[in-house]
Amino acid sequence: MKKLILLAAVLPTIAFAAPDQTAQLRDAALKDDVAWDITEGLTTEIGQRMPGTEAEARARDWAVKKLAGLGFANVRIEPFDMPVWVRGEEKAEVIAPFPQPLTITAIGNSGATAKTGLEGEIAFFPTFEDLQAAPDAAVKGKIVFVSHAMKATQDGSGYGYYGKARFVGPNVAARKGAAAIIIRSIGTDSHRTPHTGNTNFDADVKAIPAAALSNPDADNLERMLKRSPNVRLKLTLTPRNIGVRQSGNVVAEVPGSDPDAGIVLIGGHLDSWDLGTGAIDDATGVAITAAAAKRVMDAGQPRRTIRVVWFGAEEVGVFGGKAYFERHKDENHAIAAESDFGADKVWRFSTKLPDSAAGINDRLAKALFPLGIVHGKDVAGGGADVGPVIRSGVSAIDLDQDGTRYFDLHHTADDTLDKVDPEALRQNVAAWTAMLSIVANAPENIAFNRP
Amino acid sequence: MKKLILLAAVLPTIAFAAPDQTAQLRDAALKDDVAWDITEGLTTEIGQRMPGTEAEARARDWAVKKLAGLGFANVRIEPFDMPVWVRGEEKAEVIAPFPQPLTITAIGNSGATAKTGLEGEIAFFPTFEDLQAAPDAAVKGKIVFVSHAMKATQDGSGYGYYGKARFVGPNVAARKGAAAIIIRSIGTDSHRTPHTGNTNFDADVKAIPAAALSNPDADNLERMLKRSPNVRLKLTLTPRNIGVRQSGNVVAEVPGSDPDAGIVLIGGHLDSWDLGTGAIDDATGVAITAAAAKRVMDAGQPRRTIRVVWFGAEEVGVFGGKAYFERHKDENHAIAAESDFGADKVWRFSTKLPDSAAGINDRLAKALFPLGIVHGKDVAGGGADVGPVIRSGVSAIDLDQDGTRYFDLHHTADDTLDKVDPEALRQNVAAWTAMLSIVANAPENIAFNRP
Repeated sequence: MKKLILLAAVLPTIAFAAPDQTAQLRDAALKDDVAWDITEGLTTEIGQRMPGTEAEARARDWAVKKLAGLGFANVRIEPFDMPVWVRGEEKAEVIAPFPQPLTITAIGNSGATAKTGLEGEIAFFPTFEDLQAAPDAAVKGKIVFVSHAMKATQDGSGYGYYGKARFVGPNVAARKGAAAIIIRSIGTDSHRTPHTGNTNFDADVKAIPAAALSNPDADNLERMLKRSPNVRLKLTLTPRNIGVRQSGNVVAEVPGSDPDAGIVLIGGHLDSWDLGTGAIDDATGVAITAAAAKRVMDAGQPRRTIRVVWFGAEEVGVFGGKAYFERHKDENHAIAAESDFGADKVWRFSTKLPDSAAGINDRLAKALFPLGIVHGKDVAGGGADVGPVIRSGVSAIDLDQDGTRYFDLHHTADDTLDKVDPEALRQNVAAWTAMLSIVANAPENIAFNRP
Repeated sequence: MKKLILLAAVLPTIAFAAPDQTAQLRDAALKDDVAWDITEGLTTEIGQRMPGTEAEARARDWAVKKLAGLGFANVRIEPFDMPVWVRGEEKAEVIAPFPQPLTITAIGNSGATAKTGLEGEIAFFPTFEDLQAAPDAAVKGKIVFVSHAMKATQDGSGYGYYGKARFVGPNVAARKGAAAIIIRSIGTDSHRTPHTGNTNFDADVKAIPAAALSNPDADNLERMLKRSPNVRLKLTLTPRNIGVRQSGNVVAEVPGSDPDAGIVLIGGHLDSWDLGTGAIDDATGVAITAAAAKRVMDAGQPRRTIRVVWFGAEEVGVFGGKAYFERHKDENHAIAAESDFGADKVWRFSTKLPDSAAGINDRLAKALFPLGIVHGKDVAGGGADVGPVIRSGVSAIDLDQDGTRYFDLHHTADDTLDKVDPEALRQNVAAWTAMLSIVANAPENIAFNRP
């Protein structure tokens, strides 16, 4: 090491000999406490932050105080309206042939049973495709059960595939005349903590009761169905649509020196599902992005404005992301990125950049490789909240966390602070700090369709 | 290996050259499917088996059918009466300063709050000893919170130490005038699945509401208390005592050839807590002991009668164990052993034997070492159900399972079939089979106080 430093002093033209602010900021971020402080504070002082509820409003006030306290400029709430669904009672039991309770949780936008519950026979489908292919007569009046067991992957790419049972299964079952639907949780754990999440019914379809079983409960129900195809259930679900309420995005900025260079849009979502305390989904996302922006801010004014947005109401239909786009679509966004996949270590980055900015890829690769992050060849897509902005033609960068354990916890009661690894969280902050340092200060044009 | 076998053929006096029925039975048991079949059947077809309830009665009928089907003799139910407590609604929330729900579960014999709940300020005690030392004035009218975090150990010996918060904490809090008590779960996991279990109040003490928080909830509440000592909770617990009901022990036998040699008493408990499906506590225990007894039975009539008892109502006060002792105390029990510590691998055995039977230790050591089981120097104590028999002066053998993960699952909703490792279960059956083969056929006297 000493030898290298000597060499560098002798040969000042070698790149690594120059003071590298990005590397310095990155390495200092490996001691970050700001992201932990935000994650710990939000999960302790607010807890669950169900979209459109009073808890989410308290989270916005908390966020404004926190972001202003960190020294950001133009800290504000940008409110929007949205329809709100809230959970009620939720119970399930096998009535026959093997009477016993089952652990379930309602899926967002589920319809309600009568208060006294709903009884019915199970129509079993191993996968969503089996349900889709079934004739209406196999489903009519029954409680549909789709039980496709999700497998864990590092990039989390199974969510789209296995998730169909939840995303569109209830609508398909309702169209075929099902009385209700239960699905095996879209999750990779084996705990009695079922995974909620949203579903949507077409405007001309009446919402049916829809719930997720924990994986151990789905295993048990499958074992019963192997013994007897005639399994009867009783379901009690009393969620309600409580009408239109206010949500909002919380915005904070690091003003840049060059207004023409465009905005670097980053963030995560402030809302969470109601079962856990929204630690990995997505307290860590708002924490990582704000902590990184603060580090770049404290190092001196960047060329581009960094806009940190803590989006509202992501979980139930990306209401915050859409409201942000409607309000800001005419502004000059240079690039966007989002953290919404937990806080295990970032292992890969991908970009979507114009040719004029191709050099940024190499600078990112050099800055991120020391954190164990490889250069992926996918085209970056951003996250749900910045999706509308990116799809309008804005450049993007993805910093992909290891998702192997993400779907153990996703949308469950188990999404709590103890699941966050403080060292991995710091690695995230270091990766975001390095990325922001490069992107916010890049001398070249980084936006598509701009000179 | 080949060399050894040749040597053995040449030198037939070497012990391992003789056909060793115990070793053969042991090794065959490593392919056992009976224990899995029982565990899978009981957790699927019955599920939770709360003492004194209709579910436990169904389990007894199931057990009689299963044990008779396996070929045991004298299969019967021995009924007894017991007081029954059942769970009601259970909810908790922080009202101030950080409003949010908490996940709790009532402890057995908990008193009830009003249906509309109970509000109060927390009196926080890091350990049971702190509660015990507190003046009444620090507790009176408050909701006591004891938050001593249990650590996992291989032998599970921390249960007695950390468990005091549950075993006697509620009684101590009630005597000091507490309105209610919540404790950090007596458990080593970090999931939102709180650990129930029994407590007892003195006859002159009115039962107060008593519940366990999951470990992540206890962490969260501790973080709140660090920020503000004035945390207010609302608790709603509506358990009920429903009076005296019938429970029972299920008994099955392998009749021995020598009635004077005494009975080998083995078993586990058939009942379970209501939150899970009672897989590791204690479906595996009844399964292991029955599977092993069947293997010894199928190998030919043993010298001693093997009596397999699937005890009822262990969880709420060892009612089955006490009823068994009252009914059978005058019979000639040679030795007793119980499996009630899950089904991870057996790692150690211990005995309590008269001098006349000291040779059994070496035979057990030789038979169990190939399964990775060492000879412990503790005096065997048996399990809760066979405890009264052993304490009356009967010999005992313990086969100790690795308990490192036992208290992750113990008394939670997470005690389900997926937590049972089929290979470890087979190793248990092999250990029990070897032990029974030796003990049931031992030529020497193995009972204390008998010629």
